[in-house]
This record gives sequence, structure tokens and C-alpha cells, in this order.
Amino acid sequence: MPILQVEMLKGRTIEQKRNMVKKVTDAVTETLDCPKEAVRIIIREMELENFASAGVLRADNE
Amino acid sequence: MPILQVEMLKGRTIEQKRNMVKKVTDAVTETLDCPKEAVRIIIREMELENFASAGVLRADNE
Amino acid sequence: MPILQVEMLKGRTIEQKRNMVKKVTDAVTETLDCPKEAVRIIIREMELENFASAGVLRADNE
Amino acid sequence: MPILQVEMLKGRTIEQKRNMVKKVTDAVTETLDCPKEAVRIIIREMELENFASAGVLRADNE
Amino acid sequence: MPILQVEMLKGRTIEQKRNMVKKVTDAVTETLDCPKEAVRIIIREMELENFASAGVLRADNE
Amino acid sequence: MPILQVEMLKGRTIEQKRNMVKKVTDAVTETLDCPKEAVRIIIREMELENFASAGVLRADNE
Repeated sequence: MPILQVEMLKGRTIEQKRNMVKKVTDAVTETLDCPKEAVRIIIREMELENFASAGVLRADNE
Repeated sequence: MPILQVEMLKGRTIEQKRNMVKKVTDAVTETLDCPKEAVRIIIREMELENFASAGVLRADNE
Repeated sequence: MPILQVEMLKGRTIEQKRNMVKKVTDAVTETLDCPKEAVRIIIREMELENFASAGVLRADNE
Repeated sequence: MPILQVEMLKGRTIEQKRNMVKKVTDAVTETLDCPKEAVRIIIREMELENFASAGVLRADNE
Repeated sequence: MPILQVEMLKGRTIEQKRNMVKKVTDAVTETLDCPKEAVRIIIREMELENFASAGVLRADNE
Repeated sequence: MPILQVEMLKGRTIEQKRNMVKKVTDAVTETLDCPKEAVRIIIREMELENFASAGVLRADNE
């Protein structure tokens, strides 16, 4: 039943998401010893103005 | 103070959300023994390409 | 596929949790028009020193 | 490594977000004794129909 | 900057977690085209009485 | 209604948490223009074996 939430900046293609969920699911299945069917992944995409590190919005340092 | 986060696929109407938050709040209030005013619900809607199970995007299997 | 995360203070019995997940799942199923099997609920319990409102820890105002 | 997730209603300007992440990062750095570079903040904005308190959508009581 | 949150039932060894974060990080790095250093993973472990599917606590159906 | 979730490694004292929620609430109140009473903060503490960056558990590099 692993449930993963993946937060990332906007801009990836559906092809990148497709590969990511496939490979991450395989990685979880192999290492945590659970069936593939039990793995769920939620992707959340952020605008550059909705993420900050070191107190600075990503929109301001790119 | 229960705080609920509900992740669901896009496509529900505001009427469905209205009913859902009402009934879920009632269910929480009754069973956890807390005042209705203390219950908060955050709804997050996902695109079909942002949810996967068994390593496959929902956008690819519908 | 609704996935719910429920944050609440520590102290509920397993009987209360059992009732809560049953009634909340029913509420979601009825209002969002999805099969019961698709609903998952994650419960997270907090210590009184790990929740604050209005800038005050719950541990300090009870 | 503190990671903060901030849920708020839509409508703030980028200037408000810029100030918020700066001041929240300073507050975390001072009180938790960690370098500024270690603090990450994710902002999530909600539509009025995606937040409820006391069983009522915010969209319905404003 | 991908940040992952992994919810799973209690009971995995540190060796399983070590392998999981290594392989999941590799999977994310390859498919999302970002440096390894940018990937952060938060693991949250649940008691069997804190997870439900289909309205039934995991503690009740194992 | 801002709701904040703060993930951090274990080890802070209640005094540090008390100061953190006070100062973070002030920072949010000032910058987002909302009443102090509307701000809620959830703190989640992690074991060193439940956080990874760059594919390595924090428990392994300290």
C-alpha cells in the first residue's frame, strides 16, 4: 500500500511522468517487497512562484 | 481540530463537493467526538496524468 | 481513488478510528460516486506539542 | 532540512508570497537553529470551492 | 527539487529503507532530468490501525 | 485559514517548538494579511532513518 506524493516544478512532459511513475513503482516494489498493484503515486506540480528555498522564491532566482 | 486532505481526480461538480464536505464533516464529528466547527477539509484535484497506480498513469488506462 | 489524510490529536481509541473510517468512506462513496474499494484513508496522530493554532501550541492551552 | 507546506486560499500576489517565504524562513532559522539554505517551502493555493470548515465550502459562505 | 513523501505500513528494516531511497532517487533523477542532490524523500510509517481501505482498518483485516 | 505542515528531524525541545509556531504565525499573519486565529500549524518529526537527500538516509551520513 505505499502511497507516494511527488512535488515537482511544472514543465515535465507526460512522457517524463509516464517513465517516472513506472521506474519509481519498480524501485518501490523491489525494495519494499510489495505487489506493483499496491503502489499509488500522486504528482503535484508547482509554479515557480510557489516554491522557495533559502527564503527566496524559485521565480526570483532563475 | 481534525484537518482532512482529500485527493481526487478532477471532474466533480461543486454540488458534489458541497455534499461531500457536509457528510464527511458529520461522519468525523460523530465518530471522533469533536465540534463541527473544528473540522477543516482541503480538497485537491488531480489531472489524469498526475495520478498512477501499478506504475501506470491514469491518463493511459482510461 | 480518493485518498484521504486525516490529521488529529492523539487519544482516540481503535473503536473510534474503526467507526470513523467506515462512516467517512460511506460519505465519500455516496457523494463522489466511486466504489468503496477505491477509498483509502491515512490517519496521522499528533502529540499536543505538535499542533498550534493562533501561534500557541495545543500543549500550552489545555 | 525543515520542509514546510503552506496551504492557502488563492488571491495573494507574488509580492506577498515573496515576503511570506522570506519571513517564515527567518522565523524557522532562528528558532530551530538551522541554516537558511536548509529551509524549503511549498505553497499550495486553493480555490474557494476546495476548502471547507464546519462542513461548508468557503465558496458558499463568502 | 523533487520532494517525495512515502507513506507505508510499519515493519520495514533500515536496510530496506536504504535501498528504497537509493533506487527511488535514481529513478527520479533519470526520468525527471534533475541532479541527485536535488531529490529529498520523507518516509512516514503507519501503524496498522492508522490505515484503511474500503472503510476497514488494516488492523482488522490481517 | 493558512494551514502549515512543518516536517523536521527529531530532537527539538518544546521550547523551540513554542518559539517556532509563535514566530512563524506572526510571519504569516503580517505577510498574508490574515488574522492570527486563522493560522494552524502541524509539526511532524522524523527519525534520522526516515529522511533522505541525494539518495542517502540521514541516519547514514551523520
